[in-house]
Amino acid sequence: MAAFFALPGSEALAIDLAELTASTCGALEVRHFPDGESYVRVRSEVAKQDVFLVCGLDSPDAKFLSLAFAARTIRSRGARSIGLIAPYLPYLRQDKAFHEGEAIASKIFADLLGHEFDRVITVDPHLHRYASLDAVYGIPTRVVRSAELIGEWVSENVDSALIVGPDSESAQWVEEIAHAADAPWTTFRKERRGDREVQLAAQSLEEWRDLMPVLVDDIVSSGATMVEGAKLLRTAGLQSPYCVAVHALFDDATGARIESLTRKFLTTDTVPNKYSHFRVAPLIAGQLSSDLA
Amino acid sequence: MAAFFALPGSEALAIDLAELTASTCGALEVRHFPDGESYVRVRSEVAKQDVFLVCGLDSPDAKFLSLAFAARTIRSRGARSIGLIAPYLPYLRQDKAFHEGEAIASKIFADLLGHEFDRVITVDPHLHRYASLDAVYGIPTRVVRSAELIGEWVSENVDSALIVGPDSESAQWVEEIAHAADAPWTTFRKERRGDREVQLAAQSLEEWRDLMPVLVDDIVSSGATMVEGAKLLRTAGLQSPYCVAVHALFDDATGARIESLTRKFLTTDTVPNKYSHFRVAPLIAGQLSSDLA
Repeated sequence: MAAFFALPGSEALAIDLAELTASTCGALEVRHFPDGESYVRVRSEVAKQDVFLVCGLDSPDAKFLSLAFAARTIRSRGARSIGLIAPYLPYLRQDKAFHEGEAIASKIFADLLGHEFDRVITVDPHLHRYASLDAVYGIPTRVVRSAELIGEWVSENVDSALIVGPDSESAQWVEEIAHAADAPWTTFRKERRGDREVQLAAQSLEEWRDLMPVLVDDIVSSGATMVEGAKLLRTAGLQSPYCVAVHALFDDATGARIESLTRKFLTTDTVPNKYSHFRVAPLIAGQLSSDLA
Repeated sequence: MAAFFALPGSEALAIDLAELTASTCGALEVRHFPDGESYVRVRSEVAKQDVFLVCGLDSPDAKFLSLAFAARTIRSRGARSIGLIAPYLPYLRQDKAFHEGEAIASKIFADLLGHEFDRVITVDPHLHRYASLDAVYGIPTRVVRSAELIGEWVSENVDSALIVGPDSESAQWVEEIAHAADAPWTTFRKERRGDREVQLAAQSLEEWRDLMPVLVDDIVSSGATMVEGAKLLRTAGLQSPYCVAVHALFDDATGARIESLTRKFLTTDTVPNKYSHFRVAPLIAGQLSSDLA
């Protein structure tokens, strides 16, 4: 028997997952004392159950301790196993020491989570140099992909689409979306000049002038890549693009800026926001159902 | 050879400790990406050194991951040992499950720190049900006490002082201050009615009417205890008290409210603030010097 418990902000996803897998949703209380310390109380039975803690891990620093407190307390109360469902899994970008002395945050964060959980389930992890999450995580991982869902939406809603990825590292993922959309695809070349500044370039965009561009990216944070991409497409004579992101880490102002430059801006709900359109609960539930079967 | 590295906000203490112990201060870079993830880079040599990370752990949730990233990176670069100097050590209040299912945060937090550090040094830890930090921490701990420093200040600055503690649990500590001040002491009885509400009572304050009250507390957070204590002393016919706190976790408005009700409001600098008067660096340095000798 599986039971889902939500950390604050992930209640809707936990309820959806419980419904879709015919499981139960447990009660977890998380609040903060005036001095900022977290208070965690597990208010439902967990003994002998396979428990899943659901926690969107955007803003991971603020959430890690309460997540660890919940996991330890659930384990001490006799859960059979504890899985983490993190629709957005952070700390995958700092995957090596680019400069001497840098913390390899992806490895350390994976190790910290590995002490608390028996398995991790996530959506479209941002893997660059790693071929799979198993190269980072010592515990079993399950990856759910949104490419097909996005591709099908494009196929149904955009005539003569061209899928455009931000950089060569995204090629495989962009190709998956394009395949599901039955559309051609291309990528920019990207050069990052700082946390909030990128330079994009593209060869011969002109040949795609008659197509409707759909700019896709897995993570939108500062929004620099989406904004530059949309501008570059217009400069090359293409139409104002559709923009689709998986993980919405941007603030309201950035969302509005992207929306103003695009025909339509859509994201998944791994980080719930006003542009959330693609629901990941059915994808995660499908993975869980086959694992639990 | 010892080397001190500061997390953001603890730079002044690290520099003081390096000077007072004739050691070096290393460079640690900590910043945040636009999406909130922490970036940590150790910019000085640590190989074969006894390293001390200095980190005031008020707002612990926001700081834990960057602290862990720093500790792991320092260890991977060959430090001989890594100590944590946390002038304020958080998560000591939730030291048992008062209600079924509550996370025993003090034990879990101690265990998490114990994975990263070889030892912990702190000032006046808030111990209620535990007799010593060793009952919570699996790694060696060193406790520095500010009672003598506070008591000596009272002795030099307040005529006919009466040291007043907030509750019976503080009795031993209040007595230490009173001993150093060569002054009588008493405590209130305290009943906590919520995170931000307390009720204080006292017996026969009238007998102390000719003395100058010095209200002391180890942690001031919401300020409810100090405010109620100051009012109760006035109601009983005593003068507006001096107020002294060790760990200043309050916000600006609370500080101003306490200041308005008291003759003088002073704290230590374990959490630097505008009322910081008592410097803990010499106390910590004294402990370190005897440990390192």
